[in-house]
Amino acid sequence: MKVDGRHFRSIWLESDGWSVGAIDQRRLPHEFVIARMTNLADAAEAIRSMLVRGAPLIGATAAYGVALAMRADASDAALDLACKMLIATRPTAINLKWALDEMQSLLRPLSPSRRVEAAYKRANEIAEEDIAINREIGRHGLALIEAIAATKPGEPVNVLTHCNAGWLATVDFGTATAPIYLAHDRGVKIHVWVDETRPRNQGASLTAWELGHHGVPHTVIPDNTGGHLMQHRMVDLAIVGTDRVTASGDVCNKIGTYLKALAAHDNGVPFYVALPSPTIDFSIDDGIRQIPIEQRSADEVTTMTGRTADGRIEAVRVVPAGSPVANYAFDVTPARLVSGLITERGVLRAERAALARAFPDRA
Amino acid sequence: MKVDGRHFRSIWLESDGWSVGAIDQRRLPHEFVIARMTNLADAAEAIRSMLVRGAPLIGATAAYGVALAMRADASDAALDLACKMLIATRPTAINLKWALDEMQSLLRPLSPSRRVEAAYKRANEIAEEDIAINREIGRHGLALIEAIAATKPGEPVNVLTHCNAGWLATVDFGTATAPIYLAHDRGVKIHVWVDETRPRNQGASLTAWELGHHGVPHTVIPDNTGGHLMQHRMVDLAIVGTDRVTASGDVCNKIGTYLKALAAHDNGVPFYVALPSPTIDFSIDDGIRQIPIEQRSADEVTTMTGRTADGRIEAVRVVPAGSPVANYAFDVTPARLVSGLITERGVLRAERAALARAFPDRA
Repeated sequence: MKVDGRHFRSIWLESDGWSVGAIDQRRLPHEFVIARMTNLADAAEAIRSMLVRGAPLIGATAAYGVALAMRADASDAALDLACKMLIATRPTAINLKWALDEMQSLLRPLSPSRRVEAAYKRANEIAEEDIAINREIGRHGLALIEAIAATKPGEPVNVLTHCNAGWLATVDFGTATAPIYLAHDRGVKIHVWVDETRPRNQGASLTAWELGHHGVPHTVIPDNTGGHLMQHRMVDLAIVGTDRVTASGDVCNKIGTYLKALAAHDNGVPFYVALPSPTIDFSIDDGIRQIPIEQRSADEVTTMTGRTADGRIEAVRVVPAGSPVANYAFDVTPARLVSGLITERGVLRAERAALARAFPDRA
Repeated sequence: MKVDGRHFRSIWLESDGWSVGAIDQRRLPHEFVIARMTNLADAAEAIRSMLVRGAPLIGATAAYGVALAMRADASDAALDLACKMLIATRPTAINLKWALDEMQSLLRPLSPSRRVEAAYKRANEIAEEDIAINREIGRHGLALIEAIAATKPGEPVNVLTHCNAGWLATVDFGTATAPIYLAHDRGVKIHVWVDETRPRNQGASLTAWELGHHGVPHTVIPDNTGGHLMQHRMVDLAIVGTDRVTASGDVCNKIGTYLKALAAHDNGVPFYVALPSPTIDFSIDDGIRQIPIEQRSADEVTTMTGRTADGRIEAVRVVPAGSPVANYAFDVTPARLVSGLITERGVLRAERAALARAFPDRA
């Protein structure tokens, strides 16, 4: 997608043919900074520190991380170590494990001398596949938006989203945003309510930034606001992304998603989840009991970074010094609250049979 | 309640016998500053700017505002003007109208020469009545907490609260916090999950600050977190305050309350609302349709104020410059989601008959 008119992906192979570039998402929306990864440690640290984030992008970064590791040492031991280091970076998004499994099963049977080339090839493919998947998600989700648009000619379709499941969370286009960008580009009137998404503010920092650069009308709201908007018929549709979907359709996503799903259910607002199939974890059923929920640093809650009126970037503490803080990064929305899963193979019911039928190769 | 060991109320008559002191709540938790009101404009501006806030405290401030106005000019015209100026400061909390109605109906029949003394007397009474009411709310709410404590000996009772319905929101003790302080003082093990409460962060800035000064164990959480905690049985009870309750038990409170009530309902967590009877608006039924919801400045969402690592107080912008913002200050929780209303006359069902029976003089 475009940044100040120039096309960017969130991650790319640099023109040297081996190092990996990415947008440093920790600095947005205040600064646009490109990071360069040249080894395994860089890739692992990029994921851990959330220089890159978003389940699909974490997967792609891990794949490139393995390629960078192979370039330094293509032995079995190095392959094992790379996967071990990368899997330990973040616990919740299943795309990380999926990408590492892909790389392992491809590289393990190869002789070390062939691993570097094969690793880069597969990492590039994973990135390209993500883009192709998101185009299909966009196509299927567009039909949902167009159906609503047809019921209110001349009026915008109001979509609520939480956190960032935009192009910055993927390699390009995004998951939740793919139908939004496609609708906007085709001239469907659309307006997006962007949940701020405390504590890291990825809605305000990333989603609003993306939508603004693409010219999509949007409004930033505190996370507390969605229920009120839904009660007053100001939301036609909610679309969010996800970090892991269970075989039975439970959806793990950024903390607070569950609250919006409850409000949507209470007000008859359709609540959709957009995801590429690598986000499905067919090995588990019960999202609330089985998905590990990452707990992150208290600093993310106590301290906020922004720009002062005179242009300096400052971090300020907003919680009294003596008060403890908890920071759970994700929650689980039970399948019963999900109207449908927008995948590259169509909009599916959030239930075991529908997922297994659409992805028989993985179920 | 205590601040650094010294007793404070949120508002008081100064020792000069006529000017009014209050804690400037806009400066907390970063600075503890006392404001002095000497005329009607000061009182109106204190409410408007949220130097004071919280439905019961807004009511008490308005009463003192009328007294200050009478001191300058006790004519009928001045009384009308004072009530007109004060009612226009904030639209949602009904205690403002209640207090002004009290003052009007008392002062109007009196000759101007008797109004100043009567106004101060009634304003002081309203403040004292608020304290007495909150003691009773504490007593009735304590029974709920003790009943839960009895089911988990040795373990803390985990209470979730949203925004600040603490002593800072009232004249003293608080509404939602009255049972919490009472339980803590009696040695019941208690722990409070404090919703940050964006955009103004009154949970982190005021409730955490209060609880910390009183020594009540608590943890600050982003507003997105409560649903996850309830799913994992980490909340025994939710207690919030309210700015207006309808005759049928719908509850208007700080934006985001409705989302927590939905999560409590979905997880079988009792959801109580603590309120003094002046917060009940017997003139309306349907909270969602009939209660005016204040929309406040975008600055509250785009900009956060805190303390830098080297101790300076700075405001920083956290939303991209081009992104519009919406800031609805309250939402409405339908009566069906409320387990009970903790009033000075006992814990009532959130329904018309129960409210009318308990308050026949007002229904």
